[in-house]
Amino acid sequence: MNFAFVGFGNVARAFARILVERRAQLADQYGITWRASAIATARHGCITSDEGIDLIEAARCVERGESLSQIRGSSTKESSLELVDSCAADVLFETIPLNPDDGEPAVTIIRRALERSINVVTANKGPVAFAYSELTALARERKVSFRFEGTVMDGAPVFNLFERCLPATKVLGFSGVLNSTTNLILTGMEEGRTFASCLEEAQRAGIAEANADYDIDGWDAAVKAVALANVLMSADLRPKDVERRGIRGISQAEVAQAVQADKAIRLVSRARITDGGLKLSALPERVSQPSPLASVRGTSNVLMIETDLMGRLAVFEHEPGVAQTAYALLSDLISVHRDSAPCD
Amino acid sequence: MNFAFVGFGNVARAFARILVERRAQLADQYGITWRASAIATARHGCITSDEGIDLIEAARCVERGESLSQIRGSSTKESSLELVDSCAADVLFETIPLNPDDGEPAVTIIRRALERSINVVTANKGPVAFAYSELTALARERKVSFRFEGTVMDGAPVFNLFERCLPATKVLGFSGVLNSTTNLILTGMEEGRTFASCLEEAQRAGIAEANADYDIDGWDAAVKAVALANVLMSADLRPKDVERRGIRGISQAEVAQAVQADKAIRLVSRARITDGGLKLSALPERVSQPSPLASVRGTSNVLMIETDLMGRLAVFEHEPGVAQTAYALLSDLISVHRDSAPCD
Repeated sequence: MNFAFVGFGNVARAFARILVERRAQLADQYGITWRASAIATARHGCITSDEGIDLIEAARCVERGESLSQIRGSSTKESSLELVDSCAADVLFETIPLNPDDGEPAVTIIRRALERSINVVTANKGPVAFAYSELTALARERKVSFRFEGTVMDGAPVFNLFERCLPATKVLGFSGVLNSTTNLILTGMEEGRTFASCLEEAQRAGIAEANADYDIDGWDAAVKAVALANVLMSADLRPKDVERRGIRGISQAEVAQAVQADKAIRLVSRARITDGGLKLSALPERVSQPSPLASVRGTSNVLMIETDLMGRLAVFEHEPGVAQTAYALLSDLISVHRDSAPCD
Repeated sequence: MNFAFVGFGNVARAFARILVERRAQLADQYGITWRASAIATARHGCITSDEGIDLIEAARCVERGESLSQIRGSSTKESSLELVDSCAADVLFETIPLNPDDGEPAVTIIRRALERSINVVTANKGPVAFAYSELTALARERKVSFRFEGTVMDGAPVFNLFERCLPATKVLGFSGVLNSTTNLILTGMEEGRTFASCLEEAQRAGIAEANADYDIDGWDAAVKAVALANVLMSADLRPKDVERRGIRGISQAEVAQAVQADKAIRLVSRARITDGGLKLSALPERVSQPSPLASVRGTSNVLMIETDLMGRLAVFEHEPGVAQTAYALLSDLISVHRDSAPCD
């Protein structure tokens, strides 16, 4: 299989290293043999190679802040789109940052790849929130896969759990603590620390971006609610449809008061069916202690799903990092390979 | 598909009602059409029928305390084993009570069914704890399925989660609160109630058997630890290999002391890799609050799994009942059907 990477940041590079480390396991256990044929980045150039790119060399090159054009045997391309339109790839891994306004340019990149019958794996929730039904229909038409397990709760099974382990059930609603930055801040404040010092810690640990507004203002939590609702509940909603309020206004006193009352404030992504249809929200909520929603501290995540036949169940992910998102790409790759030859 | 039932208690009857209610969905969504050809019980006789047994009529008959032999068009058999050896069945649903000494007679019943190339679905953890590798090998040889999602945490995906959603990972250990009766007692004691009154409540609610010793003495938690270790960690252990202590000796004072220290006492089924190999335990532990293990109250269950590539994740099941175990049988049936015609 030929692999193309659009975006080669922390997640993609961690994934690249797993691919190299697990080359033998992938071949022996799953029959997957591969080479990297293209890498597109925003700041380190875009390259393709017929003979295969050494991913470790490419990762080091990016980590040194240098251009990928120095990689032996590579040809350069002008842009990600030019690369997607011309590269020889069986699977494209898209990991560019979230754009919560319209999901671009990721939606276009994925659309063009699927149109060329390239399987797509993404860790970017934008395309799932803005174009899930379109991209899924296109993938089906071209008989390729469009997979996105890493977009919510990293590699913890959420979409695959529903698709593969909860047959015949209907999702009636969900509630989850899905944004690590805000949860690190809220649980830090429970220990008496300030909002600013908690945020600084999240940024130092590489959990929050330098500009953490998307997290703090609830955009990440809102986009995840939309992605979940579109996939698990066949909704066709957009981030603007979510009742959204971030955690910027939450005071130390409010957090302390909640703790005093044996409760906890969490930024909750929620879907519920009302008389007026499906309602999505991403709001700070006071949740009971003990409960799954309250049980997540620091960067940990949890998603509770309410179903018709199976009642209520939850998936909990303990302190995820880049490694867990990278694992999602690996898990999706194995799904893509299996689905491309289901009767082997 | 012809269905045989060995055991027709609460779980099997709830499953039978789902089968009848969802007949159209099973046919339309999964291509499953079925009839019931045999039912074996310990106290209401064993019957087979060529023309198909009305499951609702059979359920009512058992609920009235009457013999199944009155069902129209049925022939009686002397025993479960005679029934298994002679019935026309494509799938056998085994739901007889746990025998924590040797898993019998369920192991023999399942073995005989698999030998006859009948797919087997069980909600009984005994066979998985005592004969997992033998029965799995036999099923593979006869090209049929042996499925048991309902044996741990009812219909919440545990075995399927690992098999289908965590490819390429290795399980390094687990810890779980998996027995509802003891958790109902322990969390009831946290509210100041006595052991005896909590147990009585569990029995009244149909959660604990009249003889709840298997639960209270930790046998159920131990057998579940073995089932999980055998399947998820390729162990070949038996219930006697588990370091086991129930909750009988736990005093109100100990529970209160734990709560005072912001902790909680939970009966934890645990597997960890030590220098001396894989160690299993089912012991009351003081766990931190908040944490997933502490977050389960009443009959709720949780299982935390530690993996190499995906870190630590947990599945949480909220207040399961008979409906959730019945769902496990449905989920396994859909798996059996899919695996019997993987290229449809």
